[in-house]
Amino acid sequence: MKGGQRIVDNLVSNNFKGKIYPINPNSEGDLFGLEFNRSVLEIEDDVDLAIFYVPNRKIPSILEECVQKGIKGAIIEASGFEEVGEKGLQLRDQIIQITDNFSKIRIVGPNCMGLTRIDADSDKGDEKGGFFTSFAVFYQYKRGNVAIISQSGMLNGGYLMYNLEKYPELGLRYSCSIGNKMDLSEIEFLEYFIEDNTVNVIAIYLESFKDPRKFIELCKKVRSMPDKTIILVKGGLTTQGQKASLSHTGALAENSQLIKAIIKQSGVIQARSFYELFQFARTFSMIYKNNITLPKQGNVSLVAGSGGAGTISADLTIEYGLKFPILGEKTYNALINIFPEWMPPNRFALVDIWPAMEKAMMNKTNPEIIMNEVYKLLLGEEKVEGILSMMFCSSRFRSVNNYQAVIENFNHTSKPIFFWLIGEVKEINRVSRLLSDNNIPTFPSLEDMIKNFWILVQESKSKIY
Amino acid sequence: MKGGQRIVDNLVSNNFKGKIYPINPNSEGDLFGLEFNRSVLEIEDDVDLAIFYVPNRKIPSILEECVQKGIKGAIIEASGFEEVGEKGLQLRDQIIQITDNFSKIRIVGPNCMGLTRIDADSDKGDEKGGFFTSFAVFYQYKRGNVAIISQSGMLNGGYLMYNLEKYPELGLRYSCSIGNKMDLSEIEFLEYFIEDNTVNVIAIYLESFKDPRKFIELCKKVRSMPDKTIILVKGGLTTQGQKASLSHTGALAENSQLIKAIIKQSGVIQARSFYELFQFARTFSMIYKNNITLPKQGNVSLVAGSGGAGTISADLTIEYGLKFPILGEKTYNALINIFPEWMPPNRFALVDIWPAMEKAMMNKTNPEIIMNEVYKLLLGEEKVEGILSMMFCSSRFRSVNNYQAVIENFNHTSKPIFFWLIGEVKEINRVSRLLSDNNIPTFPSLEDMIKNFWILVQESKSKIY
Repeated sequence: MKGGQRIVDNLVSNNFKGKIYPINPNSEGDLFGLEFNRSVLEIEDDVDLAIFYVPNRKIPSILEECVQKGIKGAIIEASGFEEVGEKGLQLRDQIIQITDNFSKIRIVGPNCMGLTRIDADSDKGDEKGGFFTSFAVFYQYKRGNVAIISQSGMLNGGYLMYNLEKYPELGLRYSCSIGNKMDLSEIEFLEYFIEDNTVNVIAIYLESFKDPRKFIELCKKVRSMPDKTIILVKGGLTTQGQKASLSHTGALAENSQLIKAIIKQSGVIQARSFYELFQFARTFSMIYKNNITLPKQGNVSLVAGSGGAGTISADLTIEYGLKFPILGEKTYNALINIFPEWMPPNRFALVDIWPAMEKAMMNKTNPEIIMNEVYKLLLGEEKVEGILSMMFCSSRFRSVNNYQAVIENFNHTSKPIFFWLIGEVKEINRVSRLLSDNNIPTFPSLEDMIKNFWILVQESKSKIY
Repeated sequence: MKGGQRIVDNLVSNNFKGKIYPINPNSEGDLFGLEFNRSVLEIEDDVDLAIFYVPNRKIPSILEECVQKGIKGAIIEASGFEEVGEKGLQLRDQIIQITDNFSKIRIVGPNCMGLTRIDADSDKGDEKGGFFTSFAVFYQYKRGNVAIISQSGMLNGGYLMYNLEKYPELGLRYSCSIGNKMDLSEIEFLEYFIEDNTVNVIAIYLESFKDPRKFIELCKKVRSMPDKTIILVKGGLTTQGQKASLSHTGALAENSQLIKAIIKQSGVIQARSFYELFQFARTFSMIYKNNITLPKQGNVSLVAGSGGAGTISADLTIEYGLKFPILGEKTYNALINIFPEWMPPNRFALVDIWPAMEKAMMNKTNPEIIMNEVYKLLLGEEKVEGILSMMFCSSRFRSVNNYQAVIENFNHTSKPIFFWLIGEVKEINRVSRLLSDNNIPTFPSLEDMIKNFWILVQESKSKIY
């Protein structure tokens, strides 16, 4: 199937409620029951938006017809503009002339994967869908509180689908591919998402800043909002990266000191890669869904199911600038009772829970009661702003990782709780699903877990109330 | 099942070829068909090794009997020694006295998970097994070229099993849990693995250095060996980490500047976490299995299936100190022919392969021919020391990720080739398996891929020939 057909498929199969007019001067008959028109000028109704999936050279003449028809917006998905040099720049100049410098018609793209708005989950039958204009067809998705603005189509297409499969609990509200941003850019989309209260997390990938001053101003506005976070990956931080972005979205080289200054002033969370971008977005998405208070001091407690992991975790936690507070007398004394005499707990909030579990098992106490008690104590400790947990999952030792019993506790706290799960892959997946159904994120490694806690502290420090 | 029983199970079910005598003063009958003895002194045959899984207090008297029996080695898995303070230190002093400062009997542990040697894969039926003395029973494993020395039992137990499941291609030769290393330490095991030519990769987790001077000397020896690499995670780099390690293996605090100097002088690859330790170990394991030449300059080529990923990849690659060499005339001209006119290739070795694939598809050429050609050209380019690949995997577009066609090429090169796969999880797993069957590693993120290439350069620089 060609790209144009896939776009119509995406609109139709995802329940777009408006009218769709496929246009092809060379086609007769219909597409998914929609009759072809040979030109927009043949359409009798008014048209709000034109979506282009035609080779770059054919765009100016069709765009002229769109202006004539009075269409106010266009999404141009074709590539071959600023990013290919001279010929592409000529095409751009033609477009600027035809649109009277984008005053007659506003343009998303070119060189993009369209816009997506999700209104209801893909498994919601007739209610599913929203507005899907990518040439990548979306089959599985959830509505959520994350909005994506990206200069890499991959982030709105294949890589996005990959992440929706990887993080089945990750819900999206919008996914906007802005391509070369010849007209509309991160600025307009950011303005829109700031006003939209269904959006908590704005995940952005940029190869260039369209208007740094305005960008900083908008980010500052977000810094004063308690329910929104911006995460940014900036491509083209190095000379080689800039060369690559020039041939990708036609982004012109930016001074790397200037880039650093913009990011710093904007106060956004910076991600180094797409991997971090999605992981951070998922974390904040869950944080907002559970009304979690962002940790201000970085005072964390670590609950570890292994001494060696405890040591490494302590090192990495400290390296990230987080701290283990000294436990209050009340908490410490309560822990002493739970722990065996031969292995008393630490005075600081690093809890190797294993000896307490062993003691419980020796006394024929269900270990989940102990686990529940330890979490309750730590969550009740004033100085502890959140909990990092390292747990071993095995179906053969299910009693030590039966989180069903602990979830209740988790649902009544405003402190973040993160998990790093190891053990049998199947059992990890089971526990992970249980936790993420309750908006408790799990991470594939210790460092990911710590890093994601650290960004919460960054975000809290960046907030201006 | 109790720990002692699990150890016997592990020995028996994994085909240990020697004789096993379970000892329990209170038990009658048999264990897996092996009759209980009440004491080692009841055994008529000579005994090579005693494995202890009894509470700490009971060890001295039984150890005395072992000495009396003339047993030359013991593995003590129980905890409750140096790591629990005063009482544990008294027990240690008793052991030193009984063993005449370890001259009468050598000791592994205490507070450990035993030693494991793998002779044949777990799916090899009657031939499977080796020597398994952990109280964690191993069901699935492969014999390979990696040896583990660890002060965290988890690395020889649950976390190890997790990694064997996560990296099904990862084969082990030895897994040695050295616990508190009251007698035998990393030094003796390292000496052994240096001499053992079935071992290429030595993965170590230490909470303290037993003999820094000797450690550096042994590592230096490895630096002169073309077929061995040491990877080290050092726990207790921070004060909090040291407090944690004191209560874990009784490791005393070490000056952090001193630790840094030891690691630097040893020239080992330093991993920051268990996650990195296993990932790095797997990478080097594959590198040695495929007789790959370590890159000296860090000159790398990147084959990307997306422009945005190309930009981010370029940034991160440069940040890790790697370089994209300028392509030679011959290679560049050959690439020009493969690429469409509207999107010519870069002069430097960052290849966004997508336009070439699109051109192929427009010309009804099978994209795998193009992919094969691009890899062949880059592998043939003198200045390129290895290839990083970012590929999109989808069963619907299998023609663009059909690596079966490319594998042949990969098998005839001595340059490292790494993959970062994105797309449908199922298809990723399929392609990943195909690649890893050919000792080509795949990574879950761009940064992991780049970091793993970077350690190859580190290792090559550390080698002294």
